[in-house]
Amino acid sequence: MKLIVMAGGSGTRLWPLSRTNYPKQFIKLSGMKKSVFQETISRCLLIGEQNDIYLVTSENYSELVNEQLKEMNVSIPYEQILLEPEAKNTLPAIMYAVQTIREKTDDICAVFSSDHIVDNPQALADTVKTAETLASSGFVTFGIKPDRPETGYGYIKPGNPLQGGFEVLEFKEKPDYDTAIRYVEQGYLWNSGIFVFQSEQFEDAVMNYNPEVYEAFRTSDIEESFDKTPSISVDYGLIEKMDNVYCVPLDAGWSDFGTFGTFCEKQHAKRDEADNVQFGDEIMLNSAKNIVYSEKNKAIALIGVSDLVVVDMDDALLICHKDQTQKVKDAVEILKKRGDSRVDDYIGKQ
Amino acid sequence: MKLIVMAGGSGTRLWPLSRTNYPKQFIKLSGMKKSVFQETISRCLLIGEQNDIYLVTSENYSELVNEQLKEMNVSIPYEQILLEPEAKNTLPAIMYAVQTIREKTDDICAVFSSDHIVDNPQALADTVKTAETLASSGFVTFGIKPDRPETGYGYIKPGNPLQGGFEVLEFKEKPDYDTAIRYVEQGYLWNSGIFVFQSEQFEDAVMNYNPEVYEAFRTSDIEESFDKTPSISVDYGLIEKMDNVYCVPLDAGWSDFGTFGTFCEKQHAKRDEADNVQFGDEIMLNSAKNIVYSEKNKAIALIGVSDLVVVDMDDALLICHKDQTQKVKDAVEILKKRGDSRVDDYIGKQ
Repeated sequence: MKLIVMAGGSGTRLWPLSRTNYPKQFIKLSGMKKSVFQETISRCLLIGEQNDIYLVTSENYSELVNEQLKEMNVSIPYEQILLEPEAKNTLPAIMYAVQTIREKTDDICAVFSSDHIVDNPQALADTVKTAETLASSGFVTFGIKPDRPETGYGYIKPGNPLQGGFEVLEFKEKPDYDTAIRYVEQGYLWNSGIFVFQSEQFEDAVMNYNPEVYEAFRTSDIEESFDKTPSISVDYGLIEKMDNVYCVPLDAGWSDFGTFGTFCEKQHAKRDEADNVQFGDEIMLNSAKNIVYSEKNKAIALIGVSDLVVVDMDDALLICHKDQTQKVKDAVEILKKRGDSRVDDYIGKQ
Repeated sequence: MKLIVMAGGSGTRLWPLSRTNYPKQFIKLSGMKKSVFQETISRCLLIGEQNDIYLVTSENYSELVNEQLKEMNVSIPYEQILLEPEAKNTLPAIMYAVQTIREKTDDICAVFSSDHIVDNPQALADTVKTAETLASSGFVTFGIKPDRPETGYGYIKPGNPLQGGFEVLEFKEKPDYDTAIRYVEQGYLWNSGIFVFQSEQFEDAVMNYNPEVYEAFRTSDIEESFDKTPSISVDYGLIEKMDNVYCVPLDAGWSDFGTFGTFCEKQHAKRDEADNVQFGDEIMLNSAKNIVYSEKNKAIALIGVSDLVVVDMDDALLICHKDQTQKVKDAVEILKKRGDSRVDDYIGKQ
């Protein structure tokens, strides 16, 4: 099985933790030994060898990727570190990897995003390996049994059981809260964004369901391909359109890394009686349900405040109500317009 | 007229702006040219000469005081910089100064606190000078016409008019909000904490109304005096007990510097349409009525929050609801118990 790792995301949703030139998948919060990118690579090595890994990332991150791989003592063949000339979302990224893989083999491929957190990597590895057989009949996705009506994830509507999984009846976009409650009651699963397929079938599917992308990749000039291809996600542009998509239940403590909540809670943070998530010894008086991260070991006091996300970096400070984290990108836009380089880089970090 | 400046306050109510070893009166916020202590000295020099000034401060601040005087090119006679061996509130501090003054003269004295802000120093100087005559008949306080029902100040209940002022019927402690509204309606004035008196009368009054303090100061050993004297304010321990206290209206844009609100609003802060007070170009999205001060020129975004005081120092961060700033001292107590030196000093300031 070939292992495709996508590490091109530039998410500024987690600004100021995440910067354009130093996005979330490469960050090590205080107390973290590995970035989530490095964790993803470690998980892949439970499934296959270094030589089985194909990495798709942005040209901008090639140095970061090489640094972090070296730190782990992992060596991925140079020609398998695929640099996207521009960001065109996940379908072109995977197409690039599959095309590269097919120059050598028609193997089964598994695709992993490098901004997931998995508490039990061995369980993930085992589940993905057992899906290999099923993948010869069609695309295999992995579904997580919800423990709450999460509105931040997509959902999968299950159909008939089949070889340790089931057919997918429908993919559902991120729901509102009431819809999420109904989904959970009706046995829908979270869409983990991990999937397994046979590489030739992937190319055929792109040809059938997204000929524009397919056409763009008929040249061997990758600059040209990325220039021509539309920007589209693999979910929207391919999987949701396909028949013969299967889902295998995954029970490995999976979560997406996309919000301050999951980012912080899964790291070395503590949770106090008032549901404050904190990394240090911040003083919390009359304060509940806050998430506080500080890069430096500062003396920090929160008094009479609730439901805040506080991210204190050496060069930037975010104080955001938990319900309004979707507006962080608006703040980033304003900074960009001002030409503020702290959107892209850490300035003056010590 | 001799001018007594009290600069011994160690207020940690404004932590982390203010530290035990660097209290609020000596702070220069970004954009400030002078500390409020320096502003107070400047105002005194509109009333008298350098040689007329008597400074009472803590031993701990003698270096700070000398530095800041030097910066202003002001030279106060060495023996007129009076260092309190320990903090015993304002009555002993003034007693110390008056005793020192009386070794030379029985002049009229004016007492100024170094944590006031005065928009129109010349008006203050003129008003204080005109009170000199009245001071030969009794203590003169200065009353500010309220423009709002402020609960953070004491109030003066006015009586019969008299020589450009009036008799004081009663002093009122900081009221609750409803009481403050009534006071304002009934023509009460804010007690500015500035007063003028004849120095011999002051000593007599202390002898009559607070013999314990008087006794403590009968030795020439100032260590012993401060060791023996009770800790008591000049208001509570003296003026509120006296007859023959007068009040002169003062219209000079006076305010006390005791809260983050007055501290910040009177400095070089801007106020936006949503009533946010800010020093820099902080981004405010869906946020109103916040006060934000950052020591560094950081990229700061507030999203979906209201009524917060945010003080971001290099070594400390406070996020406090405006209604709960009285709890800042509790946070400081916790830090003290932890042995955290950031209560006393700036650590790592650049």
